[in-house]
Amino acid sequence: MIKQGNHPVRIFALGGLGEIGKNMYVVEVGPEIFVIDAGLKLPEDELLGIDAVIPDITYLEENVARLKGFFLTHGHEDHIGSLSYVLRRINVPIYGTKLTIGLVANLLEDSGVKHLANLQVIDADTILNFEYASVSFFRTTHSIPDSVGVVIHTPDGAIVHTGDFKLDQTPADGVRFDYYKMAKLGKEGVLCLMSDSTNAECPGTTGSESSVGDELCDCIRTAEKRVIVATFSSNIHRIQQVFDAAQKANRKVAIVGNSMKRAIEVSMELGYIDVSEKLIIPISEIDKWDDHRLVILATGVQGEPLEALAKMAVKSHKQTAIKQGDTVIIAATTIPGHEKLVSNTIDLLFRAGANVIYGQRKVHVSGHASQEELKMMLSIMNPRYFIPIQGEYKMQRAHAKLAEATGMNRDHIFLMENGDIFEYKNSRAKIAGKVPAGNVLIDGLGIGDVGNIVLRDRRLLSQDGILIVVVTLSKEKNQIISGPEIISRGFVYVRESEELFGKSNEIVQQIILKCLKDRTIDWSTLKTNIRESLSHFLFEKTKRRPMILPIIMEI
Amino acid sequence: MIKQGNHPVRIFALGGLGEIGKNMYVVEVGPEIFVIDAGLKLPEDELLGIDAVIPDITYLEENVARLKGFFLTHGHEDHIGSLSYVLRRINVPIYGTKLTIGLVANLLEDSGVKHLANLQVIDADTILNFEYASVSFFRTTHSIPDSVGVVIHTPDGAIVHTGDFKLDQTPADGVRFDYYKMAKLGKEGVLCLMSDSTNAECPGTTGSESSVGDELCDCIRTAEKRVIVATFSSNIHRIQQVFDAAQKANRKVAIVGNSMKRAIEVSMELGYIDVSEKLIIPISEIDKWDDHRLVILATGVQGEPLEALAKMAVKSHKQTAIKQGDTVIIAATTIPGHEKLVSNTIDLLFRAGANVIYGQRKVHVSGHASQEELKMMLSIMNPRYFIPIQGEYKMQRAHAKLAEATGMNRDHIFLMENGDIFEYKNSRAKIAGKVPAGNVLIDGLGIGDVGNIVLRDRRLLSQDGILIVVVTLSKEKNQIISGPEIISRGFVYVRESEELFGKSNEIVQQIILKCLKDRTIDWSTLKTNIRESLSHFLFEKTKRRPMILPIIMEI
Repeated sequence: MIKQGNHPVRIFALGGLGEIGKNMYVVEVGPEIFVIDAGLKLPEDELLGIDAVIPDITYLEENVARLKGFFLTHGHEDHIGSLSYVLRRINVPIYGTKLTIGLVANLLEDSGVKHLANLQVIDADTILNFEYASVSFFRTTHSIPDSVGVVIHTPDGAIVHTGDFKLDQTPADGVRFDYYKMAKLGKEGVLCLMSDSTNAECPGTTGSESSVGDELCDCIRTAEKRVIVATFSSNIHRIQQVFDAAQKANRKVAIVGNSMKRAIEVSMELGYIDVSEKLIIPISEIDKWDDHRLVILATGVQGEPLEALAKMAVKSHKQTAIKQGDTVIIAATTIPGHEKLVSNTIDLLFRAGANVIYGQRKVHVSGHASQEELKMMLSIMNPRYFIPIQGEYKMQRAHAKLAEATGMNRDHIFLMENGDIFEYKNSRAKIAGKVPAGNVLIDGLGIGDVGNIVLRDRRLLSQDGILIVVVTLSKEKNQIISGPEIISRGFVYVRESEELFGKSNEIVQQIILKCLKDRTIDWSTLKTNIRESLSHFLFEKTKRRPMILPIIMEI
Repeated sequence: MIKQGNHPVRIFALGGLGEIGKNMYVVEVGPEIFVIDAGLKLPEDELLGIDAVIPDITYLEENVARLKGFFLTHGHEDHIGSLSYVLRRINVPIYGTKLTIGLVANLLEDSGVKHLANLQVIDADTILNFEYASVSFFRTTHSIPDSVGVVIHTPDGAIVHTGDFKLDQTPADGVRFDYYKMAKLGKEGVLCLMSDSTNAECPGTTGSESSVGDELCDCIRTAEKRVIVATFSSNIHRIQQVFDAAQKANRKVAIVGNSMKRAIEVSMELGYIDVSEKLIIPISEIDKWDDHRLVILATGVQGEPLEALAKMAVKSHKQTAIKQGDTVIIAATTIPGHEKLVSNTIDLLFRAGANVIYGQRKVHVSGHASQEELKMMLSIMNPRYFIPIQGEYKMQRAHAKLAEATGMNRDHIFLMENGDIFEYKNSRAKIAGKVPAGNVLIDGLGIGDVGNIVLRDRRLLSQDGILIVVVTLSKEKNQIISGPEIISRGFVYVRESEELFGKSNEIVQQIILKCLKDRTIDWSTLKTNIRESLSHFLFEKTKRRPMILPIIMEI
């Protein structure tokens, strides 16, 4: 039995609001802290050289004694991807369904931290009792099997987190939403609903995963030669459908991409993909089969399918290349910001002689609920308070409008940013301050050690390159011993710029000689003078602003 | 009278095929060369630091004596933008309609080369007679007034270039397509049609410019406070519509952005924008007017509207900032590759308290013909040969499919890349070789001086920064005089990496000392050793690969 009484409830996001990805939501009931999901996101273009972005978990580290665990909604990277980093700092139980935990185990093993993890498999019927709250789950439907919503039961009502979902009435694996459980939650009283905003700008309903099956079958059956299907390795339903379609069309399936291979292995092992082993052939053996007997299921690094396709098109892929007459099916949603990549890849494929199926035919559907489904979720849950989560601000905003349309009071809808604290105390809710909730940048092995200065330098370097001026001076003899030498990278073609470099050298020499003559050798002023004069000269001559780095060696 | 007889006709693109922008098409009739358009395009992300991309005009320079002129279809940057560069190398007459030449003059004045130019204003009825061909024009409809198609008449039939167009039956300025002239061309015999492929993947028809007018009026009339309309400065029709809507709603218009201001001035001067001067107020005076009496027409640098909006949203714009309650109308098509920018900007605007109108309401239409219009163009022109131009490969390909659907023989459709030569000789057409047609990159004042090495360096620098090792050696004394000193930029936070730098320094010292001891001071080997050892060490410790630059000063 959970402790009754008037415990304040606090809800905030460490990631996932105002952005796509990096999902991490915190629910506090009295002193107990429950964390829902621990995702990462891929960096935007301006984060030069950064590999991934994870949430700032300072707050969790500082309150680790109160942490009850991570409760995962499903096995996609944007919900589980930061666990390998987080686990090094915070070690609390990780709860998830069988497939989710299987994928987490895989991920942690790769990072060499699996031995640290306390992984707990739950199912949709599990109830976890803590002192101030209990946690239960309800089945949802998404593009990956075994996804759930998380419910934290408090004396003041349930806090419901939907995870990623759509209301798929004919899911590919036959496992439906648990409408009874959801409706019961709504009937008994939902204090606060947190629901997926990704598609809140899309009217209507999203469409079922199974609607894709027939179309895929048709495309694969009617293709004259090889079929290459590109999809995210995390889209387990789509992968199953490709296997089914290949089976029906009497084709073998070869798998390209390690992440795809491993996701399929885990899913087969745990029973989430149902496929005869005879159907699958190693990619090295595709030459033994006629073109019309082959399907190639492909993904790239980090599960990104486009990269692999582009390589195949320009024949730089290690395992296979596009042949004249191939049919390429792109069964994936474009990641925001990747539109140009997609369009360039399609161009490359066409040029390589492939027939590309994208957009026009329904070979993919989104895994996220559209407006009618979101309103349905709101109606079923009938929450007292609503926090639109998981999406850019405009999507959260569109979701808030939908909630208003279902009759919710505008004051009960909280349009929050990462770190904003929703607090429910003494029967009232308000925004009560903020916890730190920035981006932590991952670059190689470095976690959070690349900050604004490093990024600013990378940005500068990427625009007009660098120009280095080295000179060795003797303070004693008050003269130039060696140099100045000017070296540049990423600025201009050195061979064609002899005059420019010659004149630059003169400018530097003059500044140094004057400085030596004045006997006011203050290195820092000297460096500033060199930087400013050169910068001015170079901008006038080239309209470019390379980073200028004077290095003075003293003997 | 043009010379009759069997003169070979050659057609190729120096830009515009397999890409959006940089349009430049060459038609040769016997010895005479006609160039249609001279555009630029904005660089893709991977072209770090590059300002613009223009066509390689080597072929034109080498054959300048045969050049009869540039024949412009309309005044957009992707069709006229490279003239300021081209004109420095090739000076031949530039023919265009009044507005087009007005905009060209503006552009050339900015670059200080207007005095070089021989600008010739033509109208849709002009016929220019040359020795081997004559050139005529026909009115088209697009998002800018005064756009034309170009016809080069040869003894073997007409070569028709559509320019950018859509079939707008109710154009904003009332100036319609000249269907009679087009149909007459078709009847008399079109040897080859070159037609705009931009929207060849879009079914149906594009919709009229005037369809936007009512919607804009409605949005502006019903807004409670200020209205900010963001559009491209080149979209003259849209600008006229904003003036009209503001007039009807009894609001004043302030203009933000120099390119917008200048485009409006040129258009007003030449009579292509019709607006009472009383309607326009300086942006500095907007505080004198009530919010509901104001429309702000905004664009950014290079006519890009999003940049200005983003600055206004975060209050870093020099002239104005977004206020709570502003209505922002984004009346522009997203440039491919800018989707994320658009979405981020909308988020910023919402956060700043604006109501943003985008996508959902019809406040913008494309200026390019969709599938039904493209088929109509093909049917009217009834060409013997067809070259889909102006678009990415997949668009050209979709356009080719449309041509097939209208009944054209597949062998008569030429799916070409930049540089491919279409040759018609002895009553037969074929691809006959290639002319150089690469990208020339503009960076500051440099035209084509940034090549692969410079770009590769910028890319490397942008990923993990640079690490510079400087040491002064005495060959005579066979010892280190000063250093090694290690300096980095864009790699790691120096303050937090003392150990890393300390160890790096040791590694370098050891290598140098060994080298000095062995008395085998070969600078280039020494540098390679330093680079390799450090690179290995740093990658192991950080999983990053900064550019490593050893500099050895010898005294």
